[in-house]
Amino acid sequence: MEKYLTEMIGTFFLVLTIGCTVIGGGTGVIPPLAIGSVLAVMIFAGGHISGGHYNPAVTLGVWIRGRCDSKDVLPYWGSQIVGGVLAAVVVKFLRAGVAVQPIAPAVGPALLAEFLFTFALVYVVLNVATSKGTAGNSFYGLAIGFTVLVGAFAVGNISGGAFNPAVAVGITMMGLSTWSNIWIFLVADLLGGAVAGLAFKVLSVSDKEGLSAAQG
Amino acid sequence: MEKYLTEMIGTFFLVLTIGCTVIGGGTGVIPPLAIGSVLAVMIFAGGHISGGHYNPAVTLGVWIRGRCDSKDVLPYWGSQIVGGVLAAVVVKFLRAGVAVQPIAPAVGPALLAEFLFTFALVYVVLNVATSKGTAGNSFYGLAIGFTVLVGAFAVGNISGGAFNPAVAVGITMMGLSTWSNIWIFLVADLLGGAVAGLAFKVLSVSDKEGLSAAQG
Amino acid sequence: MEKYLTEMIGTFFLVLTIGCTVIGGGTGVIPPLAIGSVLAVMIFAGGHISGGHYNPAVTLGVWIRGRCDSKDVLPYWGSQIVGGVLAAVVVKFLRAGVAVQPIAPAVGPALLAEFLFTFALVYVVLNVATSKGTAGNSFYGLAIGFTVLVGAFAVGNISGGAFNPAVAVGITMMGLSTWSNIWIFLVADLLGGAVAGLAFKVLSVSDKEGLSAAQG
Amino acid sequence: MEKYLTEMIGTFFLVLTIGCTVIGGGTGVIPPLAIGSVLAVMIFAGGHISGGHYNPAVTLGVWIRGRCDSKDVLPYWGSQIVGGVLAAVVVKFLRAGVAVQPIAPAVGPALLAEFLFTFALVYVVLNVATSKGTAGNSFYGLAIGFTVLVGAFAVGNISGGAFNPAVAVGITMMGLSTWSNIWIFLVADLLGGAVAGLAFKVLSVSDKEGLSAAQG
Repeated sequence: MEKYLTEMIGTFFLVLTIGCTVIGGGTGVIPPLAIGSVLAVMIFAGGHISGGHYNPAVTLGVWIRGRCDSKDVLPYWGSQIVGGVLAAVVVKFLRAGVAVQPIAPAVGPALLAEFLFTFALVYVVLNVATSKGTAGNSFYGLAIGFTVLVGAFAVGNISGGAFNPAVAVGITMMGLSTWSNIWIFLVADLLGGAVAGLAFKVLSVSDKEGLSAAQG
Repeated sequence: MEKYLTEMIGTFFLVLTIGCTVIGGGTGVIPPLAIGSVLAVMIFAGGHISGGHYNPAVTLGVWIRGRCDSKDVLPYWGSQIVGGVLAAVVVKFLRAGVAVQPIAPAVGPALLAEFLFTFALVYVVLNVATSKGTAGNSFYGLAIGFTVLVGAFAVGNISGGAFNPAVAVGITMMGLSTWSNIWIFLVADLLGGAVAGLAFKVLSVSDKEGLSAAQG
Repeated sequence: MEKYLTEMIGTFFLVLTIGCTVIGGGTGVIPPLAIGSVLAVMIFAGGHISGGHYNPAVTLGVWIRGRCDSKDVLPYWGSQIVGGVLAAVVVKFLRAGVAVQPIAPAVGPALLAEFLFTFALVYVVLNVATSKGTAGNSFYGLAIGFTVLVGAFAVGNISGGAFNPAVAVGITMMGLSTWSNIWIFLVADLLGGAVAGLAFKVLSVSDKEGLSAAQG
Repeated sequence: MEKYLTEMIGTFFLVLTIGCTVIGGGTGVIPPLAIGSVLAVMIFAGGHISGGHYNPAVTLGVWIRGRCDSKDVLPYWGSQIVGGVLAAVVVKFLRAGVAVQPIAPAVGPALLAEFLFTFALVYVVLNVATSKGTAGNSFYGLAIGFTVLVGAFAVGNISGGAFNPAVAVGITMMGLSTWSNIWIFLVADLLGGAVAGLAFKVLSVSDKEGLSAAQG
């Protein structure tokens, strides 16, 4: 139960920050920097309890990699979506009256952009938070959060930059994206997470107790 | 005594940085980035001496969680407020002649915004700096400082983004907020800290010597 | 084989981020912050598998320092260039129709700028990721990535700020630089990496199991 | 000898980055972010060899605290100043023809601003890089570098934001400050470093093998 509450709290603050910075909060550097930072912070705070997924695509990838119990997958997804929905409600209250324009993405580039950076996100998660080669490190939250920062800068104006189905639900409720486009995020993000889970198994067949790059 | 001086020094530089960046220092990204960074830096520098609270709401939450002696609570609060007051005096000298406009927040959204991000701040503090599951990490200062960065980006233009009663005193003295609004910060921030302290006890009932997310 | 795939994936996301942020992505702070961050992230994710070079000049310097097998040098270079080429193809699809203007550098300053910051980059890599004095640290990715961030801010408008022959190939394919100028990057970057490899051997003759600065 | 070369290299890249970003490099967020980052990076790279001072005021404070041999003080100062001078020469070549306007500070505020943030800088250095309470951490470079980032944001437009006599020499050679004002930096920065060294001895009388804030 603590795990599910932790996932809900983390996803809540992630989606709250997205909504409050994109809607009436700032432009340019601000939303990606704030979003990457809140994800980093929530992972550092909750990772030791729930793993700090806050993202159904991450949960899928971690499950494929074998570090999430099958019985936890649906409760994690549910907690994440509840967190995103609650955040959307709060954003609508805090930013009441601010005009919102949904993104109108070109489908092909948006699918590819979401797939690539969700792959990158889950690839980073699996390597920094579930691999023996990086065990005990103090950078996992920063590495994961800043992958989303990078994706938001690189393709935010192509796809919206969700890389996360729970975020997709939240931003659609806020009017930043349309319900008719939500399949783009669901398909591309879950596919990206699944491919990253499979890629990890190929790239880390052994996953032996290895030396990190910094250990010479 | 070393603990109280450390709390005073850290809060002084936090409030000094807030004043010098918000008043005649810059716009957009600059104040939140500077403020989150100075908090991170002062926590890294002083955390091993005093715990690096620099915030009465943090001291309250840490006390509820059981990691601050009851006899230290009031001296910590006093040291933090003295630090904030001294910083306000210095800012008035360094930024003499720069016009200052107090924020005029809507009360409801401001109370909610301050409550939510002070909760997030103390939730992060307790998990990264007092939990066995993250013991020995090197990210605690960054995680805590960047929570304030996130809050400042997300709701800075709703409430002012103090999340800290000692900061509230300092910015009110500088004219960035009015004395008639200071109750918003005192009520919401102390409540946020207290709720986070209670939430930690629920979410970490066991707080056993656990594996961090990065330890596979 | 896992090492080569890891080098390809990391270089792919590095060059993809460069292309997507420089072409139609943003200005000012955004490209250097995104580029430094993606390099940091990919090093944290892949460093324990391949060393996280993603850069032929780094591979050269690491080989001179004696931490890269001679039989790996050419496959590493090949994987890095393939990653850069694939990224250029994807950028052309994602940013189709966006006008691109190649940089027209003054040769002397561009050679010096590329040499100096590639030297700095490989100097940092060797000290934070291959030295006994910093073994087991959690900052190697951030230190390396932010060296590129610094170089991009400092001399990006002088040379283009590649510091990496695989990046040079990618940005030339995208039209951000011209084929007639690619020798600038190849010469200066490989020279910078080689000199850093030699400098490391001079500065760390002993490379004994030493105390880090933080270990008092 | 390796120590002196390391101090020279680190100070060279610090002053090179200051010159190249302030002169024709960017505005607003860019110089402080680049300068704080280059200092962080160079400390992570060279700290295990020389301590990573790159600043005569830091060397003074570390010497007062008892972690720098008396016979090293003058060679460190010399190496740092040589690095700053070389950087100024390179900046003049790389940014030839770019107009430079020296800062015209008000003496009182400039002295106070330089004193306060050089104190903060050396206070952070001593606590994160020479204290038993934080031994073995992975954040020392980031904490020190970002203290300068904070100071540059907070008081850069009051004093120039050097906090470092070797930087003062470099920026004066580049024309960013005047020779008639260099005493401001020399006096305030060395005083700030000395007071921080004394303050550390008061605040850490015992400096016993203590628990860090993160070790519960």
